[in-house]
Amino acid sequence: MGFWGLEVKPGKPQVYNPRNEQGKLHLTQATLGSGSGKEKSVIQCSVEGNTPIYLCSLLPNKTECCPLNLEFEDEDETVEFSVTGDRSIHLSGFMEDYDEGEEEEYEL
Amino acid sequence: MGFWGLEVKPGKPQVYNPRNEQGKLHLTQATLGSGSGKEKSVIQCSVEGNTPIYLCSLLPNKTECCPLNLEFEDEDETVEFSVTGDRSIHLSGFMEDYDEGEEEEYEL
Amino acid sequence: MGFWGLEVKPGKPQVYNPRNEQGKLHLTQATLGSGSGKEKSVIQCSVEGNTPIYLCSLLPNKTECCPLNLEFEDEDETVEFSVTGDRSIHLSGFMEDYDEGEEEEYEL
Amino acid sequence: MGFWGLEVKPGKPQVYNPRNEQGKLHLTQATLGSGSGKEKSVIQCSVEGNTPIYLCSLLPNKTECCPLNLEFEDEDETVEFSVTGDRSIHLSGFMEDYDEGEEEEYEL
Amino acid sequence: MGFWGLEVKPGKPQVYNPRNEQGKLHLTQATLGSGSGKEKSVIQCSVEGNTPIYLCSLLPNKTECCPLNLEFEDEDETVEFSVTGDRSIHLSGFMEDYDEGEEEEYEL
Repeated sequence: MGFWGLEVKPGKPQVYNPRNEQGKLHLTQATLGSGSGKEKSVIQCSVEGNTPIYLCSLLPNKTECCPLNLEFEDEDETVEFSVTGDRSIHLSGFMEDYDEGEEEEYEL
Repeated sequence: MGFWGLEVKPGKPQVYNPRNEQGKLHLTQATLGSGSGKEKSVIQCSVEGNTPIYLCSLLPNKTECCPLNLEFEDEDETVEFSVTGDRSIHLSGFMEDYDEGEEEEYEL
Repeated sequence: MGFWGLEVKPGKPQVYNPRNEQGKLHLTQATLGSGSGKEKSVIQCSVEGNTPIYLCSLLPNKTECCPLNLEFEDEDETVEFSVTGDRSIHLSGFMEDYDEGEEEEYEL
Repeated sequence: MGFWGLEVKPGKPQVYNPRNEQGKLHLTQATLGSGSGKEKSVIQCSVEGNTPIYLCSLLPNKTECCPLNLEFEDEDETVEFSVTGDRSIHLSGFMEDYDEGEEEEYEL
Repeated sequence: MGFWGLEVKPGKPQVYNPRNEQGKLHLTQATLGSGSGKEKSVIQCSVEGNTPIYLCSLLPNKTECCPLNLEFEDEDETVEFSVTGDRSIHLSGFMEDYDEGEEEEYEL
């Protein structure tokens, strides 16, 4: 199902609901967005009602990208990604088809 | 089962017991918490009675996050995460359901 | 099927169509190309018509390489990789044969 | 089988023999130990009689941890980890049970 | 089959032919070798006749190691690793036995 990407801007949280998606999301990278802000940007993830957890913290002109390794599939809860700081953070990864395993079985 | 996160504060160790959980934990990231402390923070992990092992060492304004790759499942021992330094460390990752494999088998 | 590599130069986007390939691409690394440019280079990925997403941002003489973890297989959409900045970015990874799984099954 | 950790001190090599262990070791992280030494520390791995290979090189106050990805299982040779430099290096990872796969089969 | 390592020196390319090996190579790390050279070292990989692709770029006293994720197995082409710059680069990883999967099947 291919490439997946999402830009999260400061002050504009974005919701991801795995139940609405056709596949399993592998979230594998975070990269600082464009802009001239010099302060660090932090991306956080929260599950309904819980305190947000920092996923990574990106520093302009020092560390502008960081590998991640998170998976979200159809039994999983909705999460909210939010950014604090001067600049947006681009999340990227890929979607894996749910019936991939099944197809392989049929070949038997 | 989705996203998993835990903030560990300096001087306040947290216990994780895989036997009490519904799934297998993939612990995949550590990120420095908020605050103005300039000293490095180190997160350690110890298995009952053993000397703590450093998992990663985060430096304010230089290296504020680091990928990890640890797995904890129901046959595994209880571990204690603790932080030394000025600031908390946020751990994140995801829980994988134990019966995922089984369900796939039933489709046969 | 082995090693896979692609140099993407600033202003010269490159298209990757998984349907034209004999295997599944694991894109696992980005490294800054040669040159004397001092400005950062950013590699972006876009799926037809969508806003490009930053995959990573490389800083000359500071952070010149970054691990990635993206997968592209035959059901996936065509993507376009492009670079903004002074220098090219080398992408690398490996191709995994589609019939690897099948062969293993035949051994049953 | 859970968390695995080992502190390797300068001048005190440590042997790891996978044949003596109950599971497969995934060695996934190296972190600089405590101390005031300012010189870099390098962890090396050697297989009996062969020249040691550098696994990673940690720089105090700059890069104090680095992800690794090495696996050691019961058919594998004994290795020796050694550190050169001012400070110890903490290795961490997890042990995977050998009969995990089997148990899953029995569920069929 | 265990640990795998190779030191590649500047100006002395090394060939790796997966067909001559007993297992599948997972190449997972690159680390700067010893020496006093201050210039960056770049490791490249090329498949017969093709332009070399940069795998990673290591900076003395700044970024001396970098995780990789490349796989080479018996159907794959011969590759050549070469280094440009002042110092050697140590590659490390592990070999996975080809008949591991088969053995598991026999247990059925």
